[in-house]
Amino acid sequence: MKLQKSLREDSLTHNIEKIENLALTEYPHFALANSEENWQRSLNFANDIRKDFDCMVIVGIGGSCLGGKTLCHYFSPYNTKVDFWDSADLDFLEARWSLLKSPEKTHFIVVSKSGSTLETFAGRDFVLAKLEALGLDFSKQMSVITEEKPSKLFDWHKANDLKFLAHPLDIGGRFSALTVVGLTPVAFLLGDKFMDEFKKADAWQVTRDLDEACEEFMASWQRGEWQSIFWPYEEKLRYVGPWIQQLWAESLGKKKDLNGKNAPRVSSPVSLHGSKDQHSVLQQIAEAYPDKLVCFFNDKSIQKEDKDLVEIMKSQTPISLNGIVNQLKLDFDHIWDLFLSFEYFIIQLGRLLNIDPFDQPGVEASKVLFKKRISELEGVLK
Amino acid sequence: MKLQKSLREDSLTHNIEKIENLALTEYPHFALANSEENWQRSLNFANDIRKDFDCMVIVGIGGSCLGGKTLCHYFSPYNTKVDFWDSADLDFLEARWSLLKSPEKTHFIVVSKSGSTLETFAGRDFVLAKLEALGLDFSKQMSVITEEKPSKLFDWHKANDLKFLAHPLDIGGRFSALTVVGLTPVAFLLGDKFMDEFKKADAWQVTRDLDEACEEFMASWQRGEWQSIFWPYEEKLRYVGPWIQQLWAESLGKKKDLNGKNAPRVSSPVSLHGSKDQHSVLQQIAEAYPDKLVCFFNDKSIQKEDKDLVEIMKSQTPISLNGIVNQLKLDFDHIWDLFLSFEYFIIQLGRLLNIDPFDQPGVEASKVLFKKRISELEGVLK
Repeated sequence: MKLQKSLREDSLTHNIEKIENLALTEYPHFALANSEENWQRSLNFANDIRKDFDCMVIVGIGGSCLGGKTLCHYFSPYNTKVDFWDSADLDFLEARWSLLKSPEKTHFIVVSKSGSTLETFAGRDFVLAKLEALGLDFSKQMSVITEEKPSKLFDWHKANDLKFLAHPLDIGGRFSALTVVGLTPVAFLLGDKFMDEFKKADAWQVTRDLDEACEEFMASWQRGEWQSIFWPYEEKLRYVGPWIQQLWAESLGKKKDLNGKNAPRVSSPVSLHGSKDQHSVLQQIAEAYPDKLVCFFNDKSIQKEDKDLVEIMKSQTPISLNGIVNQLKLDFDHIWDLFLSFEYFIIQLGRLLNIDPFDQPGVEASKVLFKKRISELEGVLK
Repeated sequence: MKLQKSLREDSLTHNIEKIENLALTEYPHFALANSEENWQRSLNFANDIRKDFDCMVIVGIGGSCLGGKTLCHYFSPYNTKVDFWDSADLDFLEARWSLLKSPEKTHFIVVSKSGSTLETFAGRDFVLAKLEALGLDFSKQMSVITEEKPSKLFDWHKANDLKFLAHPLDIGGRFSALTVVGLTPVAFLLGDKFMDEFKKADAWQVTRDLDEACEEFMASWQRGEWQSIFWPYEEKLRYVGPWIQQLWAESLGKKKDLNGKNAPRVSSPVSLHGSKDQHSVLQQIAEAYPDKLVCFFNDKSIQKEDKDLVEIMKSQTPISLNGIVNQLKLDFDHIWDLFLSFEYFIIQLGRLLNIDPFDQPGVEASKVLFKKRISELEGVLK
């Protein structure tokens, strides 16, 4: 990763203490990219499904979808081979179902780390009802990715003898893009070319630029920039913003630090995309109160065609951002570089802020409330 | 519209002066909903196209797409009849083209208020090249919506004798959802049922709740809530957030007020959607620094099915937001109510802040820079 910056001189402070390199070996997250076994396991599972099915649907929400969706769109924008159903809304599910080329040639993987995510059960039950109505055998057309321990979802796969892939126990849902969760749909999409991609991921290394970017994020908070805008322009990077948004918000947005004291304030992540958002929020970013740091991205592996009008459109990024004072430009070699770098940022920032980047007490609290409400409604959940 | 609020007592201030009712007749925006001629004109144009074509693509960006896209998704989520091409990125255009059911049965409307939007020309040129490659006659398959005065796009339609519909001169792009720009694709989608919808729009009225909501937005800024989060849950409302985001950011995010003095600070609009974003940013909103006002929506016209798990999922909204201190719940009777109410908020807030809600000097400045850059690249633009 390479970093370029354009920052207000008058408010830029450099009093953040030097960041020590993270001992990467402490964290299993970074080993995933280099683990041929991890990749091969995803490919084997995908190939097994490819024998009988043309299309794949991932039924899951949050981290169960965001990584794979970002990656599949990167490799093939708007492909019709792999879809992600990340909502329990009937309008959504019915519409996506109607867009399936052929339900009997579609395989559905139900993904939930905990095995107890209610929206995901709603999606699963929707698929079950649809397959049943067509007289299709769900035990052939559905499989499960969850942690290998008793849960509603784990028990269901056991009872019905479904294909199963274990979610790693030591990796949280929002860090699961490079586990079987994110890689299986990509392997299904890419087929034989999948392991070539493994070699590119393998090349990622920690550089000084990564720590400098962490410093810049923290410096931006000192300037009162409480919104960090993640704004890729290229179509292939459309879902990178939402992926970063979850990783950032759940990992860094904490009430208490590791000592139980009030956690430091951090910026909120905002996801924008392409020139469409330039025709939307640019006015406010460029001219109104400067409370934002804008990060934009360049994936160097995306082929550029010179002298093409469409291509020149892409060069508008720096021009559009002309009025924006504080910006970071992050150059990546490949999507894996981007993913691993942001996981590094988040873990490193968590360490510097003395907070736990791996928990999410606020989300858990709402889940408890929601389950209580559901259990009060008799006969709804089987 | 009805308003419910849940606000921190300790910081809520009530010292905003009473808002006088806006003299609606001053603004042409609100007359659109009641103008049968405006609706009929959109329907006639759409019907004329429906005679020969099954599908419609709108080529345009920003306000030329956002209104129609929001509305079409509302009436038929993920329909394959009307698509919106709001990017000049080749990966996007190629992918969308490949998803067309039948290029020769698809009509393309090029939309640009000014008639000089560069991204839109890139999209137009892409369509031209594709139709030509198939030996199809673009003069039958393309039409234009722009202001009725000389411009690159207006001149092009004249020279090629294309179907044409005039963009109103007195309505800005971001306020164009209820003009021919937003209504033509809806009319194409709904066909004969379109004029029934007109009657629902006609019923919208200014209520005290609207002014109260304006007061609440301003009160939230006094509490330091510099992010206004617009968070509908229902699938049908998926694109409402991006539509509001443009309207808000371009209309309220100003450097100078009407007297040339520094404009007052206003919050930045953030668009979230559904329970998917609950599994993403809820942690930070609920537990971290309280610098956000969360607005969520209820469209009362969306049919609810009781005792359905999927339906109960929708009831999670208030539970999920349990940890969020400051929130507004906005109840709307119908999508038209929502659109007109937000246009009212924006014009009213602009008036209260003494800024011009209808210009966008920052965007114009970047367009000038971009055109200069393009003109330096010889032979690229015809």
